Amino acid sequence: MKFTIEAISEEGRLGLLQTAHGVIHTPAFMPVGTAGTVKAMTQAMVRESGAEILLANTYHLMLRPGAERIARLGGLHRFMSWSGPILTDSGGFQVWSLAKLREIHEEGVIFWSHLDGARYELTPERAIEIQHLLDADITMVLDECTAWPTTKEDAAKSMQLSMRWAERSKAAFKEREGYGVFGIVQGSIFPDLRVESAEYLNTISFDGYAIGGLSVGEAREKTALMLNATTPHLPKEKPRYLMGVGTPEDLVDAVLSGIDLFDCVLPTRSGRTGQAFTRKGRLNLRNARHAEDSAPLDRACQCPACTSYSRAYLHHLAKSGEILSAILLTTHNLHYYQDLMADLRDAIRRNALAAFAAAFRGGIRNDGPEKS
Amino acid sequence: MKFTIEAISEEGRLGLLQTAHGVIHTPAFMPVGTAGTVKAMTQAMVRESGAEILLANTYHLMLRPGAERIARLGGLHRFMSWSGPILTDSGGFQVWSLAKLREIHEEGVIFWSHLDGARYELTPERAIEIQHLLDADITMVLDECTAWPTTKEDAAKSMQLSMRWAERSKAAFKEREGYGVFGIVQGSIFPDLRVESAEYLNTISFDGYAIGGLSVGEAREKTALMLNATTPHLPKEKPRYLMGVGTPEDLVDAVLSGIDLFDCVLPTRSGRTGQAFTRKGRLNLRNARHAEDSAPLDRACQCPACTSYSRAYLHHLAKSGEILSAILLTTHNLHYYQDLMADLRDAIRRNALAAFAAAFRGGIRNDGPEKS
Repeated sequence: MKFTIEAISEEGRLGLLQTAHGVIHTPAFMPVGTAGTVKAMTQAMVRESGAEILLANTYHLMLRPGAERIARLGGLHRFMSWSGPILTDSGGFQVWSLAKLREIHEEGVIFWSHLDGARYELTPERAIEIQHLLDADITMVLDECTAWPTTKEDAAKSMQLSMRWAERSKAAFKEREGYGVFGIVQGSIFPDLRVESAEYLNTISFDGYAIGGLSVGEAREKTALMLNATTPHLPKEKPRYLMGVGTPEDLVDAVLSGIDLFDCVLPTRSGRTGQAFTRKGRLNLRNARHAEDSAPLDRACQCPACTSYSRAYLHHLAKSGEILSAILLTTHNLHYYQDLMADLRDAIRRNALAAFAAAFRGGIRNDGPEKS
Repeated sequence: MKFTIEAISEEGRLGLLQTAHGVIHTPAFMPVGTAGTVKAMTQAMVRESGAEILLANTYHLMLRPGAERIARLGGLHRFMSWSGPILTDSGGFQVWSLAKLREIHEEGVIFWSHLDGARYELTPERAIEIQHLLDADITMVLDECTAWPTTKEDAAKSMQLSMRWAERSKAAFKEREGYGVFGIVQGSIFPDLRVESAEYLNTISFDGYAIGGLSVGEAREKTALMLNATTPHLPKEKPRYLMGVGTPEDLVDAVLSGIDLFDCVLPTRSGRTGQAFTRKGRLNLRNARHAEDSAPLDRACQCPACTSYSRAYLHHLAKSGEILSAILLTTHNLHYYQDLMADLRDAIRRNALAAFAAAFRGGIRNDGPEKS
């Protein structure tokens, strides 16, 4: 797996990540295809939004349809008919947030499925094996998601367990051309733990470094602080991935701090609940003020939802609970996120990232009639 | 509205129906876009399936978002971004099947919305006015849906009320180039009532003739009998529309009996419940035997669902309740229905309709491993 940095503006980096299934232009946003589908989208729609890489969830896929089954069917790319790169998480976060019950041991985690209560064991070695079976271009180490709130002592213990699991994960990973494995920095909201974690992962040497535990609870508010504490301790020449973040504003801030990869359910989940992101702010399409508005969601957007349909129609669909509402709003939100990433890449290329970020914040925060 | 018959085979007719919003090649199948959306489809997907005309439901649209609102937004074509022809039903059948309560009077029907319990009045004149507001290319007269089971006396009274309403509907319809109004033959399962109804409508003179009341309960089984009793009494030079029918087998039979237009929720509703129509029979994608089947739904189908995805993936999506399951199976089912209509038109053109129908029945009724 090869990562090339082509330009730098502030801490922001314009990069090219070459994987077995194709190239990713960074900073990049990965739509979340939890169970092997980006919800409410066909794979052609995801591709047309500009996405070059998807994230899929090991936890969901190991439960249903099962990693061995996907391997027998030719791997996840072939199974879901997505020819581009795929990053899989390790299942750690989902076990923590979705499983009915779980027990954490040094060896790994035992959990009971939220689908049928069946018992599963996930060790660092099994998490890597599953991701090999799925044929993920980018594999993530198994980590423990530190609870929130937490004491520093508990956060340290949790982080140190994650570091031992990271070492076992790396040992289990099979090197192949175009494939890579990323370590995950933990340490909750404690800068010195974050530094310790980053430096420890550095000694193991990964193809990329993720920053975990910042999409949970109040830790979100400390994201900028944690990034600024952590990134100086990560190798400059490797890609950096901020897991589970975030809003458009979060993405701009994190790119300014030197992050290269993002994933978040926000654009897709919002699309299924009548929410749209626009260049002027967010819209709730269920709001009655859209009922006779013949304008598109976002006049500057060239997506199929904006070029063919009015806010009035989208309001009608959202109020009626029609599937087309989820399809069109998800389509638009993914286009919006991909357009934002393209604008950020362009700003770095022009060495104008700070000016772009300032203009973006000014535009998005206006309180004109577009806000809902 | 101009209808041209280009070829005849058995009783089947190959026709061209010219409307204000474009041409329809008949026999034609109209996907149902109840609330101004063919469920789980974008309008581009519907168009790509081969559909030239949609059906929309007056009942649903008058309740939400309202006919006057759609008119202010430029009519239904513009509102939903469908540039082709649209046929609207009159609301009669939906009031009968969906409204919370209803009272039938000579003047019209009073009903209470299934959405919020609000009281509405639908007269023949208002039904036509609503369809004018929607800008329907083909408007349907208001009729009373005869209950089932029924006595002949009640069926006669119901049919005669529908005939008086048909006359008032025609009087209220404003003639415009490319727009037309269809009468609806009623009479339940009584051939002489069907004949009486057809001949009465004939004296009023409509742009087309629909056959109603045959998608309800056990009356379905008498469809062929009723068609054969009715069609000889309809003018040959006008289009004939069998409302709410049906399965692929029903469509082939009805085309053999001289029907030109169809609508049915079957392909779309089935697509949302894991059912697929194929050239070898129906499939239930939730069935475990598809779990590792890498074959497409239908090898002879060129739709996006069949060219990109396996039965194994569709099984996974259906079992997981993913929206993409509804999208892909509806896409395929609509393509299947449109391909069938294209094959029927081709068979009529070649004067080989009887042979096509026999081969179709043979293919679809085999009990090979494809059946579920």
